[in-house]
Amino acid sequence: MIASENRETPVLAVLCGEHRPPDMRAVESGAVVRYTDAAGLPEALSGADALFVYDFLSTAVPGAWHAADRLRWLHIASAGVDPVLFPGLVESDVILTNSRGVFDDAIAEYVLGVVLAFAKDFARSHDLQREGRWLHRESERIAGRQVVVVGTGPIGRAIARLLRAAGMRVSGAGRRERTGDPDFGVVHESSQLDEFLPHADYVVAVAPLTEHTKGMFDARAFAAMKPSARFVNVGRGELVVTSDLVAALEDKTIAGAALDVFDTEPLPPDSPLWTMPDVLVSPHMSGDFVGWRNTLVEVFTENFRRWQAGEPLRNVVDKSLGYVPSGNQGAG
Amino acid sequence: MIASENRETPVLAVLCGEHRPPDMRAVESGAVVRYTDAAGLPEALSGADALFVYDFLSTAVPGAWHAADRLRWLHIASAGVDPVLFPGLVESDVILTNSRGVFDDAIAEYVLGVVLAFAKDFARSHDLQREGRWLHRESERIAGRQVVVVGTGPIGRAIARLLRAAGMRVSGAGRRERTGDPDFGVVHESSQLDEFLPHADYVVAVAPLTEHTKGMFDARAFAAMKPSARFVNVGRGELVVTSDLVAALEDKTIAGAALDVFDTEPLPPDSPLWTMPDVLVSPHMSGDFVGWRNTLVEVFTENFRRWQAGEPLRNVVDKSLGYVPSGNQGAG
Repeated sequence: MIASENRETPVLAVLCGEHRPPDMRAVESGAVVRYTDAAGLPEALSGADALFVYDFLSTAVPGAWHAADRLRWLHIASAGVDPVLFPGLVESDVILTNSRGVFDDAIAEYVLGVVLAFAKDFARSHDLQREGRWLHRESERIAGRQVVVVGTGPIGRAIARLLRAAGMRVSGAGRRERTGDPDFGVVHESSQLDEFLPHADYVVAVAPLTEHTKGMFDARAFAAMKPSARFVNVGRGELVVTSDLVAALEDKTIAGAALDVFDTEPLPPDSPLWTMPDVLVSPHMSGDFVGWRNTLVEVFTENFRRWQAGEPLRNVVDKSLGYVPSGNQGAG
Repeated sequence: MIASENRETPVLAVLCGEHRPPDMRAVESGAVVRYTDAAGLPEALSGADALFVYDFLSTAVPGAWHAADRLRWLHIASAGVDPVLFPGLVESDVILTNSRGVFDDAIAEYVLGVVLAFAKDFARSHDLQREGRWLHRESERIAGRQVVVVGTGPIGRAIARLLRAAGMRVSGAGRRERTGDPDFGVVHESSQLDEFLPHADYVVAVAPLTEHTKGMFDARAFAAMKPSARFVNVGRGELVVTSDLVAALEDKTIAGAALDVFDTEPLPPDSPLWTMPDVLVSPHMSGDFVGWRNTLVEVFTENFRRWQAGEPLRNVVDKSLGYVPSGNQGAG
């Protein structure tokens, strides 16, 4: 992790998809940079000291891992690290860092937006407008409504703060039950779904995808929710048993869902979610504000500077947990 | 205004449209109540001491005014009093009160919702969902964006507080320029459009409809706005020169509009606003939360109690201004 151990210019592999990272000049001045797509990743990894997974949804890293012969650091341009959290990396000494913080406030705005879209019936207004129909309806208030945010990391906290500022009553759900949390007040224990889901008007899923959270929103979870509850997923599609969600929406076990993430992305054309009433589908974009790509490169560039200077990296992931533990964000 | 002057049970006319006011029992126990539609209004007004205009969009009052032979009080179930502010009423001694306060927070939520709908491109997501198309886009942040709220009454203030809580930068526009306003900070002088409109990302119209505000959003006003600005009207349709708004949207002088009110309601089928891209049409419902009709009756009932007890009425409209001046909301 200390670049000065290595007297040569370090080699950085950058895994890109459709887009190349913008403005890598600061990094390029301090490293031999090998931009590659998934096919070229093994060759690019051979002899590389660091890997920047800019194409953060790529699943190419495990299959190229055999070529990582001197890798010391892997940085991913996302908050969720599940695409690179495979046994080979977990068991290695390679440091894993993420882009925690970049998406927090944009995702919070998105969640507040879909909550208001449900309360004010925007989708129906849109359909009626397309039909040229003037049909007055009453709408819901959001002030005073109960929200449970499942996931108490920085994105969940940003959501809690914004929804609370808008007058909603927010609690959290995380690994450990506690009170007096600065953002959530009460944090429920995620596994005790039956206790906290029945009180929520909105349930927001933003937990990291781990063995503990995978499929946690299943038939039992939806059955515990109010028939008037709306489910919002801005975390990972695999947090949800999709067939159970579809059944819960069909049976009116819950009243609606706003889904920005799916277990298969892009959402397949034959998914019933596309056409279900009371379902808002968006293409994994909730955090992707104008300028996000530049911000992602800025976050990487700062960590690269620290790496070269031998300073502690920011956002070091606890590979056994699958996320950055709170208080472990590095200096600054 | 002092019921005790009149030893008999007072007569109350209630102008209803499609809906009758719910739960008038408290009022009915203290008055002879004549429920009427527009056609029966002259007969109902004859001998009536008070008129409750529950059908607040009705334009029937001026035509029935000749029959108001002993009317002392008119209460309207809306914030805007323009439908009843005709010369006969203005010049009379009849006290006019409104339903100020009922709609404030619901309208504020609605405005925040349409701001987020624009920023997060919900209308396009909805259309893409209907087509089954997965198309990633970047979205805008709302934090830090500039909003000018034109209208500094209680609805405008509720909008300012909520948008500010969500991280936006808000100023107001009203009759008098001032600073240090508790909700707006800076209040611009409404007539100086050219000075404050060029800085706004969102312009929210919520001024009362008076001779000073009628048609204030005209070609000149839209020309003063940024090409990226969105215009939100939750006040009255007549604040806007609709043909100028349509032209500004067609020419991309501004980027979009969310319109809950129109100069003709229902919006006529041939209005181009129904089908314009970047226009969100809703049917005058922004303040009409579930329970609003009961709340309107509660507000009237409290004023009726005060009227009978000889106490000062709440929300007395200054008929020369066309709204309730600040600080003139009655006791409590």
